[in-house]
Formats: sequence, structure tokens, C-alpha cells
Amino acid sequence: MRILGIDCGTERTGYGVIESDGKRHRAVAFGVIKTNPRAPMADRLCVIAAGLRAVIVEHAPEETVIEEVFLARNSQSALKLAQVRGVAMVVARETPMEVHEVSAREVKMAVVGYGNAEKGQVQVMVRALLGLEETPAEDAADALAGAICRATMRRQ
Amino acid sequence: MRILGIDCGTERTGYGVIESDGKRHRAVAFGVIKTNPRAPMADRLCVIAAGLRAVIVEHAPEETVIEEVFLARNSQSALKLAQVRGVAMVVARETPMEVHEVSAREVKMAVVGYGNAEKGQVQVMVRALLGLEETPAEDAADALAGAICRATMRRQ
Repeated sequence: MRILGIDCGTERTGYGVIESDGKRHRAVAFGVIKTNPRAPMADRLCVIAAGLRAVIVEHAPEETVIEEVFLARNSQSALKLAQVRGVAMVVARETPMEVHEVSAREVKMAVVGYGNAEKGQVQVMVRALLGLEETPAEDAADALAGAICRATMRRQ
Repeated sequence: MRILGIDCGTERTGYGVIESDGKRHRAVAFGVIKTNPRAPMADRLCVIAAGLRAVIVEHAPEETVIEEVFLARNSQSALKLAQVRGVAMVVARETPMEVHEVSAREVKMAVVGYGNAEKGQVQVMVRALLGLEETPAEDAADALAGAICRATMRRQ
């Protein structure tokens, strides 16, 4: 099963495609879609939509997993994040592909074994679980972690 | 100038297309895109995207105006609204069309002349300004009000 994880962000949206039997996972592709902070929001959202469509066309994932948005300290950021999330959900669902939602806690539990794990721990564990030679960037690692989490849940 | 106003909502997304010289306005089309509250969010967002694309293809607006999301009492609702807003912005911008953002206050000032006007006042004024025979539904009226607001701003 090939799974696409998306870590939404207005400036940096991480993506990660893995191939998994639910137990062993292999990274197919991962990276970060960056947008220009000085561009209008509609343009930035279009860049993210186009970037995600390119990833889907190239790597043909069979389902998508996106982390839920929660209201952190900065609620304006959460609102911007939610806009990106809406775009990501439509892009994936229109392919058409199943779109699953996971919480940050579920992702951390699945990857680190601890629901309040730090970002750095997620990066280290993602690298280990996928046998990567280098530690992926934070946003890409979060996207890969989401995909691993979904792969693990499918197996249960 | 033909302007599309969009009033985002997960259950009901209002749209309104007007033709305006900045002073006199005429309603071209308006209505509400409804989604099934029991359907997964990704599916509902796709319904909204498809509905808005159909409106754009049929009525060929030249620019779009979308109201800013603000954090109201219920911040979970604001997050859902922001998801719809991201989708609406991408759908409009990809046509491609300019996408403008206005605040609820600007819209009420432009239509009612009072920034804290009630929803009902907006409906009544939209009906009067466009010479409609019936009062449009709340979400459609808000979308039309956004378009009128933009038309008025363009003229200044």
C-alpha cells in the first residue's frame, strides 16, 4: 500500500510518500513545497495545490493522510493552516483517493511511542523506521510520520 | 464588471454574481451550495469546489471576493470555515481570476452603512440595492453583499 502524508503549512507544506505492508515501511519520496510569504494568499494556496498534484501524479499514492488542525497559542496561524488543509483535502480527494485524518498525538504515538514527543524525536524515529541516510527536514518528517501512522492503523 | 462574492460555510456556502459599474448593480445569479453534514469533510469540500466551479463556468465572473475569517466564539467552526475558504480561493484563483479579501465590517459598511449591522439588515439592503423581488437567503445575501462591497471599493 502506497500512502501520502501531508503536513500542511502556508510557508512550508511537507509531503511524504511511503510504501508499506503495515509493518515495514519504505520511503518513496518526500520533500517540502515552499511558498513566497510576500505573495497573496490565493497564489500561495495555488502553489501548494499544484505541488501536491504533481506529487500525486508522479508517485501515485493509494490513500492520503492529513493531520488535524488544533488551536494552538496562535489562532491566526491555525486559521491559515486550516485554509491549506482544505486545499490539500480537495486536491487528494478529487484524484479520487481516500483521505484520512489523524491527530498529532496519534502520529507521535505511532512513530515515537509517546503522544507528547518533540518534533526532533519524530525526525529521528522517521529516519530510523525508513532507514534513511539523512534526517528529513521537519515538515517532510512530519508528513512521513503521518503516513507511517496511517500504515500502522490500517494493519490493526 | 462582473464580480463573484463567496460566503464560505461547511454546511452552506453562499455565492452571488453581480454586474456592476461601481454605482448601479444587477444580480446575475445567486444561491447556496449545501453539503451533507454526515459526509466526510473531504467529500463536502469537493462538493463546494465543484459547485463553485460550475458557477464560474456558467456566469464567467471577472473577479472574486471572499470575506476574511475571524475567530468568533466558536473557534472550531472558524477552523472549518477556513478550510472552505482555502478551497474557494484556489478554485477562483486557478480559473485564473483575481481574488480579493474583505472584512465583514467593510461589507456591512458598504451595504448597510454601519459596520455592526445585523444579518437581517444586510439581506434587506441587498434586496433593495439589487432590486430583487424576494429577499435572498442569508448566505446568498452575504455573498451578494461581498460582491457589492468590492464593486464599490473598485470605484473609489
